[in-house]
Amino acid sequence: MDIIEIINKKRLGKILKREEIKYVIDNYLSGNVADYQMSSLLMAIVINGMTDNEIIELTKIMLNSGEKLDLSSLGTVVDKHSTGGVGDKTTMIIAPIVASCGVNVAKMSGRGLGHTGGTIDKLESIPGFQVNISTEDFLEQVKKIGMAVVSQTNNLVPADKKIYALRDVTGTVESIPLIASSIMSKKIASGANKLVIDVKVGKGALIKTIKDARKLAKLMIKIGKANGIEVVCLLTNMDIPLGCNIGNALEVREAIDVLTNKSRGNLADLCIELSSYMVSLGLNITYKEAKSMVIDNLYDGRAYEKFLEFVKWQHGSLEGLPKAKNTYKVKSTKEGYLTSIDALALGKLSMHLGAGRASLEDEIDYGAGIIVKKNIGDYINKDDVLMELYTNNEIDTKEISTEAFSIQKENTKEVKLIYEIMK
Amino acid sequence: MDIIEIINKKRLGKILKREEIKYVIDNYLSGNVADYQMSSLLMAIVINGMTDNEIIELTKIMLNSGEKLDLSSLGTVVDKHSTGGVGDKTTMIIAPIVASCGVNVAKMSGRGLGHTGGTIDKLESIPGFQVNISTEDFLEQVKKIGMAVVSQTNNLVPADKKIYALRDVTGTVESIPLIASSIMSKKIASGANKLVIDVKVGKGALIKTIKDARKLAKLMIKIGKANGIEVVCLLTNMDIPLGCNIGNALEVREAIDVLTNKSRGNLADLCIELSSYMVSLGLNITYKEAKSMVIDNLYDGRAYEKFLEFVKWQHGSLEGLPKAKNTYKVKSTKEGYLTSIDALALGKLSMHLGAGRASLEDEIDYGAGIIVKKNIGDYINKDDVLMELYTNNEIDTKEISTEAFSIQKENTKEVKLIYEIMK
Repeated sequence: MDIIEIINKKRLGKILKREEIKYVIDNYLSGNVADYQMSSLLMAIVINGMTDNEIIELTKIMLNSGEKLDLSSLGTVVDKHSTGGVGDKTTMIIAPIVASCGVNVAKMSGRGLGHTGGTIDKLESIPGFQVNISTEDFLEQVKKIGMAVVSQTNNLVPADKKIYALRDVTGTVESIPLIASSIMSKKIASGANKLVIDVKVGKGALIKTIKDARKLAKLMIKIGKANGIEVVCLLTNMDIPLGCNIGNALEVREAIDVLTNKSRGNLADLCIELSSYMVSLGLNITYKEAKSMVIDNLYDGRAYEKFLEFVKWQHGSLEGLPKAKNTYKVKSTKEGYLTSIDALALGKLSMHLGAGRASLEDEIDYGAGIIVKKNIGDYINKDDVLMELYTNNEIDTKEISTEAFSIQKENTKEVKLIYEIMK
Repeated sequence: MDIIEIINKKRLGKILKREEIKYVIDNYLSGNVADYQMSSLLMAIVINGMTDNEIIELTKIMLNSGEKLDLSSLGTVVDKHSTGGVGDKTTMIIAPIVASCGVNVAKMSGRGLGHTGGTIDKLESIPGFQVNISTEDFLEQVKKIGMAVVSQTNNLVPADKKIYALRDVTGTVESIPLIASSIMSKKIASGANKLVIDVKVGKGALIKTIKDARKLAKLMIKIGKANGIEVVCLLTNMDIPLGCNIGNALEVREAIDVLTNKSRGNLADLCIELSSYMVSLGLNITYKEAKSMVIDNLYDGRAYEKFLEFVKWQHGSLEGLPKAKNTYKVKSTKEGYLTSIDALALGKLSMHLGAGRASLEDEIDYGAGIIVKKNIGDYINKDDVLMELYTNNEIDTKEISTEAFSIQKENTKEVKLIYEIMK
């Protein structure tokens, strides 16, 4: 076998054999296939596609490139994944809800890079919170309190790690086969046997259309089946920001607000939906039964109790949650209805305020971030506060663009939060 | 501008602007665009194509990435190019024919790599022959004797050099836009104002079909026009080996045989055709007039005299032309008509005998190579000698495959040498 022959084959739109895919992944990891060869092949895959079988093989081979977590001692474990977004703090809300219903959540999460945040960074903004836990302690914790959220180990799917970093800098991110195999290899390696996936659809998301979201969901369900994992996908609207807070400690505060029933809206609604599907899978009950359990546990405080237990168990203390030194109010220069908010632009702004890292070595300012003060559909008057910025830097609010807020004469029609459920 | 945006644009099949192409080439040369980004973009170009205007811009930008040779003091200069092949020794035959007709040939040639030979290596097999000549001496020589063949300087189209090396290892060679811009940028930078191109078509060639060859030819003619250069393309059959000898000094001997009228056949026929088009362009006369001049000069020895003058002027001496120590005869194990010869396979065999280099640092054994002893259409008896191998290594002829020679019960139909002329 020869990498150039394999690249030429995919360039011509032919189907790669299992051995050929394995040759590529093995030799890319060992360094015998160079980055410039891998990126050329990735571009050919992005443009010419892969068959479902090729994608299933690719996922299996990536999955086997590293360690796999054995969660069999925990019985049924339900995991959840989101295809990513700005201000997505759902894990911190959903995991305690689901665990409080008696379903094990043993979750590995990642850190943020660029404008997207990572659950691990958010949890680390809680003073003392430990995310690096041995596998033994991780399993022990799930057995004891029904949940744990820890940092991904480096040995899980190293092939995906290396390929993802390359895709990020070579214009080869937007590919349904590559997205599906990346998500599913990591999730299968993480050991859960049931999985709920939040497939974000919209301008700001990786997946722009419902049609593509359906394709991706169908593929992930199929890969799941091939690996004995039950997958449910929720296709959700990414044009609506999830909640109001962006930035690590600010998002922890908002998660607490949802868990203590102080905050309602899209964020709470989506968390209830995702939790319901997870509980339904975990307890093998209907969605309706699961939803009523979820709502009960959220409203009577049992979910919040689970959250407090979880934070304590991982050595966190909510007392000293950091707050940035400076607060700035950004006001509207226009009048009209708020029809959309560009989550991507706010994610980038939040990063500049100190809440994210531009490169992996950067340190995060845990208290920094944004609180959005208006909702989609609100009528905005001139000088109304659109958002509050939290930062330890000095900034001039005149230099802050409000273009992320689209203010129009006509109000927008009400938009759906959840488009479709696929399983 | 941003390389990832540009890659994404081409990935989606959009048209790149002049500034975007310039950004890519400039930043690739300066190292700000990485190999893995360039190869990803190249693959997107190979699959999604480029418009004629994009290709013309790309060619101009590559052309301007380095020095250009100014041949204006020589008046009309006609160059020739071949899209490559095994045993292509046409330059050594054509240049003296054309120069003997009074048309200036100021040629820069390359070295060989892998199974393809380079004119410069072939000339260097002549003891004492100098290929590294200053631009002043090069121009002076053309003024004095009407021809010179020298080694390409490193400063000519550095962008093409870097991109070509990358294409070679990333499965992005077979692209008509990239082939056209690579050839034309080099040829325009070499300073000729009229150009005859031998576009090889066939299984072993870069271009497999007449349809693609036509596309490539049309494009090169168009690029030529955009740069004030008259281009004539001959679409020629690559399935027929050109002459019988492969290997540096062996090819010099065969060139001499053609120039002294001891060898007839496809090689001589193709050289007469290419020379006739070059002379027609150079002297502004009809093809018919040019052809009669070419045949006269070849048959009465003036072309050979020009060759001897050329070799002497560049300090070569034909006396001690190297010969390999060992000769081996390879015999047929089959009986039937010789219907085709796999030039690529023989090129690789010749390389292993010592005639070519696997990597740029390897030394060449100038005496090594192959002489094919049979012609297409010949009836072959068992134990007939198919080829003679020349090498300084010890080899076991039993281990030499004769699969390059296709021997069949039915004879093949006569094949065309030249398919089409385009201008």
